[in-house]
Amino acid sequence: MEAGEGVSSATPTEEMNGAGNLMDFLDEPFPDVSTYEDFHTIDWLREKSRDTDRHRKITSKSKESIWELIKSLLDAWSGWVVMLLIGLLSGTLAGVIDLAVDWMTDLKEGVCLSAFWYSHEQCCWTSNETTFDDRDKCPQWQKWAELMTGHAEGAGAYVLNYFLYILWALLFSFLAVSLVRVFAPYACGSGIPEIKTILSGFIIRGYLGKWTLLIKTVTLVLAVSSGLSLGKEGPLVHVACCCGNLFCSLFSKYSKNEGKRREVLSAAAAAGVSVAFGAPIGGVLFSLEEVSYYFPLKTLWRSFFAALVAAFTLRSINPFGNSRLVLFYVEYHTPWYMAELVPFILLGVFGGLWGTLFIRANIAWCRRRKTTQLGKYPVLEVIAVTGITAVLAYPNPYTRRSTSELISELFNDCGALESSQLCDYINNPNMSRPVDDIPDRPAGPGVYNALWQLALALIFKIVITIFTFGMKIPSGLFIPSMAVGAIAGRIVGIAVEQMAYHHHDWIIFKNWCRPGADCVTPGLYAMVGAAACLGGVTRMTVSLVVIMFELTGGLEYIVPLMAAAVTSKWVADAFGKEGIYESHIQLNGYPYLDVRDEFTHRTLATDVMRPRRNDPPLAVLTQDTTTVEDVETLIKDTDYNGFPVVVSRESERLIGFVQRRDLTLAIKNARQKQDGVVSSSVVYFTEDAPQLPASNPQPLKLRRILNLSPFTVTDHTPMETVVDIFRKLGLRQCLVTRSGRLLGIITKKDVLRHMAQMMNQDPESIMFN
Amino acid sequence: MEAGEGVSSATPTEEMNGAGNLMDFLDEPFPDVSTYEDFHTIDWLREKSRDTDRHRKITSKSKESIWELIKSLLDAWSGWVVMLLIGLLSGTLAGVIDLAVDWMTDLKEGVCLSAFWYSHEQCCWTSNETTFDDRDKCPQWQKWAELMTGHAEGAGAYVLNYFLYILWALLFSFLAVSLVRVFAPYACGSGIPEIKTILSGFIIRGYLGKWTLLIKTVTLVLAVSSGLSLGKEGPLVHVACCCGNLFCSLFSKYSKNEGKRREVLSAAAAAGVSVAFGAPIGGVLFSLEEVSYYFPLKTLWRSFFAALVAAFTLRSINPFGNSRLVLFYVEYHTPWYMAELVPFILLGVFGGLWGTLFIRANIAWCRRRKTTQLGKYPVLEVIAVTGITAVLAYPNPYTRRSTSELISELFNDCGALESSQLCDYINNPNMSRPVDDIPDRPAGPGVYNALWQLALALIFKIVITIFTFGMKIPSGLFIPSMAVGAIAGRIVGIAVEQMAYHHHDWIIFKNWCRPGADCVTPGLYAMVGAAACLGGVTRMTVSLVVIMFELTGGLEYIVPLMAAAVTSKWVADAFGKEGIYESHIQLNGYPYLDVRDEFTHRTLATDVMRPRRNDPPLAVLTQDTTTVEDVETLIKDTDYNGFPVVVSRESERLIGFVQRRDLTLAIKNARQKQDGVVSSSVVYFTEDAPQLPASNPQPLKLRRILNLSPFTVTDHTPMETVVDIFRKLGLRQCLVTRSGRLLGIITKKDVLRHMAQMMNQDPESIMFN
Repeated sequence: MEAGEGVSSATPTEEMNGAGNLMDFLDEPFPDVSTYEDFHTIDWLREKSRDTDRHRKITSKSKESIWELIKSLLDAWSGWVVMLLIGLLSGTLAGVIDLAVDWMTDLKEGVCLSAFWYSHEQCCWTSNETTFDDRDKCPQWQKWAELMTGHAEGAGAYVLNYFLYILWALLFSFLAVSLVRVFAPYACGSGIPEIKTILSGFIIRGYLGKWTLLIKTVTLVLAVSSGLSLGKEGPLVHVACCCGNLFCSLFSKYSKNEGKRREVLSAAAAAGVSVAFGAPIGGVLFSLEEVSYYFPLKTLWRSFFAALVAAFTLRSINPFGNSRLVLFYVEYHTPWYMAELVPFILLGVFGGLWGTLFIRANIAWCRRRKTTQLGKYPVLEVIAVTGITAVLAYPNPYTRRSTSELISELFNDCGALESSQLCDYINNPNMSRPVDDIPDRPAGPGVYNALWQLALALIFKIVITIFTFGMKIPSGLFIPSMAVGAIAGRIVGIAVEQMAYHHHDWIIFKNWCRPGADCVTPGLYAMVGAAACLGGVTRMTVSLVVIMFELTGGLEYIVPLMAAAVTSKWVADAFGKEGIYESHIQLNGYPYLDVRDEFTHRTLATDVMRPRRNDPPLAVLTQDTTTVEDVETLIKDTDYNGFPVVVSRESERLIGFVQRRDLTLAIKNARQKQDGVVSSSVVYFTEDAPQLPASNPQPLKLRRILNLSPFTVTDHTPMETVVDIFRKLGLRQCLVTRSGRLLGIITKKDVLRHMAQMMNQDPESIMFN
Repeated sequence: MEAGEGVSSATPTEEMNGAGNLMDFLDEPFPDVSTYEDFHTIDWLREKSRDTDRHRKITSKSKESIWELIKSLLDAWSGWVVMLLIGLLSGTLAGVIDLAVDWMTDLKEGVCLSAFWYSHEQCCWTSNETTFDDRDKCPQWQKWAELMTGHAEGAGAYVLNYFLYILWALLFSFLAVSLVRVFAPYACGSGIPEIKTILSGFIIRGYLGKWTLLIKTVTLVLAVSSGLSLGKEGPLVHVACCCGNLFCSLFSKYSKNEGKRREVLSAAAAAGVSVAFGAPIGGVLFSLEEVSYYFPLKTLWRSFFAALVAAFTLRSINPFGNSRLVLFYVEYHTPWYMAELVPFILLGVFGGLWGTLFIRANIAWCRRRKTTQLGKYPVLEVIAVTGITAVLAYPNPYTRRSTSELISELFNDCGALESSQLCDYINNPNMSRPVDDIPDRPAGPGVYNALWQLALALIFKIVITIFTFGMKIPSGLFIPSMAVGAIAGRIVGIAVEQMAYHHHDWIIFKNWCRPGADCVTPGLYAMVGAAACLGGVTRMTVSLVVIMFELTGGLEYIVPLMAAAVTSKWVADAFGKEGIYESHIQLNGYPYLDVRDEFTHRTLATDVMRPRRNDPPLAVLTQDTTTVEDVETLIKDTDYNGFPVVVSRESERLIGFVQRRDLTLAIKNARQKQDGVVSSSVVYFTEDAPQLPASNPQPLKLRRILNLSPFTVTDHTPMETVVDIFRKLGLRQCLVTRSGRLLGIITKKDVLRHMAQMMNQDPESIMFN
């Protein structure tokens, strides 16, 4: 059907299908009008019905010829192709980012003489030194001071190295913030709050664009390498979603349907977490639990596929050289004991408190940034925070290195191969060489030293992360949160271990910790602490435990992890239900209808609908008395997304709903192409326009663009039901009627505004007024 | 509020909330009338709103006193308590079932002299023989023939053992079917189709009752021990759900709300799979993907908790003595190669074909059972099938033992400790003792022998399973399906292995299979085949792969499993979209609205609603002209669940909807307790009844039981939207209007009937009529 014919010819069959069919001529009639405007909400039901229409067309065509059949098969397979591509690209990008971060982080300290593009570890792989201690100091790798002055040791070298470390850090962060500022402002932050909002049906143009993808990838490397207290995990989800969006544009099935596009993005988010943590199942559950809004079973299956492909792509790149997907994969060998649940739960409490503190402080700081002068100097802010971070981080060996290396060291058992000072235990002289399963031993001076440094690192990380998250550079907070938890956990772990060693006879240790046995694993405490802190900040539950499970690879440790995660969530929830992402969504005022918020107030649809008591009456169209001019005036004077159509202003009986955009287009179209349509033409939404005398202007029949099945509720419907309907059906608006009469309209934003109002006020005061 | 006052006193506040508040006096007014009748559908929206009401009441009360606060906290925790109890009980039951099955399966062959309650393996644990071969023949364990005649060998002993094997099998299965017949007819079958239906909001009284729990547990042991081709996995889900239902009755929060009850049952299903396969994550995903209908995030988290508790309870019982949760847990040590994907995909094709064959043949047989004389002799049928199974199974060592043992042997690598004839390879004389990582070797005579026996076992299993599933005893089909796949897989695996060994020089083997290397793991093929066959029958996807992943404990093998699962699903879907559970649901005519069926036809609400063109008009009540007698007549003459209330018969404008049950109760109540209400009293649904002269009979005001927010759609709403709304909101019925006028009603059963009609007919013929 041609665009020109669209308006006037409506056969009964076509008309039968109210919302679906009318899209034909409206799909892309004028290049400047897109289906949804920026910062608007999509209509899920409409998108779904458009897709069903498309599918129906393809299916019926496929019976016509072999070529159409092949086309329909290709169409059916395009979903899997997109998943494959997303998996491949996001896996590759994650690998490249890992390698680049590795190299640039080490570049702050020194350079590899044999090949400058080698990281410290790669540089020393080829070295002949076999012991671990020496391997770190292989001659090919030179610190900057050594390279420049020839002296590796001494105060001068230290100061020079310190200075260059700060300089590199500043350079990296300056580059990162400048690139973000100039090329892709959307590349900043973690991206997860925005992706949650987009997946819930909001349009943010360019947020998942090609530029954002490119700039976010580059600046993520720079930001992480600069040593700031931020991680790459959240931004990786954003990067994967950008990949998803990129590949959507290859297939009209996805690029032209905002609903289908969001299915792909949900799967892309899963792929992002899959490569961030090497946890494909955890990634899928993260997407399901944390970011997705509409997650049909089909998407579950495809997400899993994308997550697996991404994980295998990353594994074949093997950025860490350990054929694992993450730096901090661990395997423990000793079991845990019931009594250890007490420290684990304490770590959970700590995680919950940290989560609360972090969210409150960070939101307060971000609000300050938004509302004061501070927000005007993002570059300066980044430079300042980087400077402070670098100055404070360098002297402490635990903060100087990259955060994932720190986490990796804290998670690990003190096996035979550890040269870390965390493992400086006093060896039993009788044992010639410690084996893999080493018994508990007294702590040596190195351990006590390490404890002090860790305590300082903990305070530093807690404070600096609050100021870092939310700056205008890509920044994830999984890694800093995990680091805080891992440090706290390791400290607790060592304390419990030493207590058990020195007090075998205490009643709690008596049963499970004989002298000379290996009964406490401080690394496990670090992992439990990391899970607790991550849980406190993000309020993830199942996905968190599954991610941690995939990191340890043993069902054995699920109970400690779960105990900590549950405790941390409960503690944090006691201070406020919202996780960091929801808080940022609220801070930015995105129209996000959280699935988890239970609406329990007793308000009715009539309390929320517009027009309110003293407002002007609802802007409606009548089915057969409105003129083209009236419509144009209405469109000019209001900014509503659409207008209800009623039988007459007196009876107020609802006929349908017409979208503002469709109305604009139809009139524009008719004025251009249809003879006799003038300002005084009457617009008919009825099935047949009456035969008018020739003197009257030509009528404009617009039944085709009328949605004959608008969603209605009665004015007595409890708001909890309305909220439920909006959530589950993904509505944009809903009309309110009473005994068949149109009373008003409720839009998604009205619902959100009402919910916010209810949450902040005392519920008792509203319940009975 | 007392029941007597309920009808006439309606303050504005109470009235405000249409559906929620009116339940007060209707909750349990007469013991013989329950909220929902048997084989009826629940109204999810109503259940949800009732729960919100309850919650609101508790929250507002909790501010009154400390005691109320404690009560509200207890209420909030009751969900977790229920989960804990479910986990503990279902884990324990699973352990007991495992132990009992183990013992009774061996009882068919012989008895332990030192302690008759020991199974063969337990009996010989204490034996002094150290080699595996001898351990099986420890003196404490005696076969029946040996015990009775003193001769362990010879034709006579064989015949006697054979005979007793059959006798025991017949005894067990006779007991099982009799117990089911007499005490709990609902205990038969796998239970998953019914649980899916119940979770979707259907009421089947007694299906999850205490008797069913007890009888199903006992008869499950008997049925599995009898050697029939059935598994315990599906019934374990049923048992876990019975536990869930049992514990629901402890808390009124769950026992009085069918919606909340279903949340618990979803979690219980997860616990069931968790203990059946030792896969807590897989269990949760199974519940999410396969059985649940309404699965909010809160349920996800709780299901995970229940699944973990169940798994740990089972582990502490340790029924298999390997500190694993299942008999067939395996760990492989060699990687797989790209070229192996070809046989894996072939296994997928086999699985898909098997799935199709099984579903078609089994459904045909079950239909025959339902419609012919066959169905009248369930005991005879079970006896006959058991007899045939036992007669045919005994001579073949692979079918004689229990199916899980068979699967376990097929899954396992031929390590050093295997004495199975499957591992009868010709050893290289140079190797003094085969180590764990043994290179490929030529097959010995034992392997060829085993191949023959396996091929016969495959045919036997395929045929007998079709006739077994659906008999009147507890029967799961996970295990038989997996056995079919494992046998086929192992055969393919050995073939590939021998091909690779004998043809190192073939181009496909050249790259990955050097002589003397260990490159093909036949056990992995068995596992892949099992996944493929299970996938073909049940159409599980993610949960299947995750369960298998948890069985192998390595990310390494996800790709083969996934390739097979995807292929098998695609192949099976090409022949018919429905899995075995959906087919059985359809066979039994349960009103189940599948989330996965995409409704793509172009029908409108007007095509589905009742009354149809030539039907009598819709049974409605008017708001102020119907008498009590009219209502009573209407209730007597019709069997509708409820009636719309309109302003008047002329205007047909909808006011609300009244439930049949509420109407019956209110009138019964009023007649008993309210003076002056007689047959000619007018029923008022308006806000105020007019002041009538004293001569007129007392009016009956029923606005309180009127649902003022009935769900409506317009007659032009596409059916795909209507189906979506029914699914997502869990509606029972929906009213159809056109421009405010009531036209008709669509119930869930109308939707289902229409969908079935559409699926069977040629869609083209419907699309344009």
